[in-house]
Amino acid sequence: MKIVVIGGHGTIGSCVSKHLKIKHEVITASRTNGDVHVDMESAESIKNMFEKIGKVDAIVNCAGATKWGPFAELTEEDFYVGLRGKLMGQVNIVRIGKNYLNKGGSITLTTGILAEDPVFGATNSAMANNAIHGFVRAVSQEHANEFRLNVVAPGLVEDSAERLGAAFPGHTPVPMQKVAKGYERSVEGLRTGEIIRIYE
Amino acid sequence: MKIVVIGGHGTIGSCVSKHLKIKHEVITASRTNGDVHVDMESAESIKNMFEKIGKVDAIVNCAGATKWGPFAELTEEDFYVGLRGKLMGQVNIVRIGKNYLNKGGSITLTTGILAEDPVFGATNSAMANNAIHGFVRAVSQEHANEFRLNVVAPGLVEDSAERLGAAFPGHTPVPMQKVAKGYERSVEGLRTGEIIRIYE
Repeated sequence: MKIVVIGGHGTIGSCVSKHLKIKHEVITASRTNGDVHVDMESAESIKNMFEKIGKVDAIVNCAGATKWGPFAELTEEDFYVGLRGKLMGQVNIVRIGKNYLNKGGSITLTTGILAEDPVFGATNSAMANNAIHGFVRAVSQEHANEFRLNVVAPGLVEDSAERLGAAFPGHTPVPMQKVAKGYERSVEGLRTGEIIRIYE
Repeated sequence: MKIVVIGGHGTIGSCVSKHLKIKHEVITASRTNGDVHVDMESAESIKNMFEKIGKVDAIVNCAGATKWGPFAELTEEDFYVGLRGKLMGQVNIVRIGKNYLNKGGSITLTTGILAEDPVFGATNSAMANNAIHGFVRAVSQEHANEFRLNVVAPGLVEDSAERLGAAFPGHTPVPMQKVAKGYERSVEGLRTGEIIRIYE
């Protein structure tokens, strides 16, 4: 398969890209490095990226910003960091990317355990991630005969544990290989509309 | 209790207001009628409303717009109807309203069954409603000692069944009285961080 991995050089994305490369042709996309450049917060940039790489068999997104901080300190504008990034960025990847999928193609998005088990400071992440879960359920049904759409929701991943672990008390870091396999299941499997939870 | 019901003249809001009035002092707020006027899509308007009515024991919101339509036809801007209305409208009600709550007060938001069981055309509703579920889980934890925060998620309600029923195949309309009691449970009960599903 020809697969584009957006955010293919981040903590999760680089591991997913490496894993998918074992069997597939992988194009990595990111804002500053990668095979192609893309700003996922711009619909025009997403469209330009697909025009450049052409049709693909699978689109995987591992990117998306959210704002971290206690609810009491978040301004109205702070909330839009996650709404424009993690949420609408991924919505636009599906909205535009579906027109660049070969027959039988799939799209795999990324959320995380904060959707269902938010830690302190994770309000914006909880909102944006959970919104994507609703989005995936709705869109996968309307387009069940055209393409598959899933989302991988990892827990705290091992490669982030040193940097982020203190914010996730009691969470067991998830091995990167298990996370990568969640994406493999979405890309190569038959599922659609699934939230693939990789929590431990 | 002194309770403000925002959207207190809509299909659900008017029934909730009427029900809460049996035991409480209820102030209804809405864009064009009601005891006070408010545009929930404007943080300034929400603040002005609370300045006018003063502190309350409970805030109930039954309002919030979303965009209806097949995913394939929704523009990027269409998605922001629900993000600014149903989602950020309710976020701002909590963000601002918490400063106008008496000790032991509560806030009750509204979503619906489309968060978990989206019908055709409900992508924007599914996103916004599900985002609110994540928001309620996150914020209720951070503020557990200050105020309670719940959300009532009704199914297709009886008073909307004639108008909307065709879009909800196989859904059993929920009696208005059961919906109203969901809000009563949130306002008078002890729960916080709960999604109170009233699906049948």
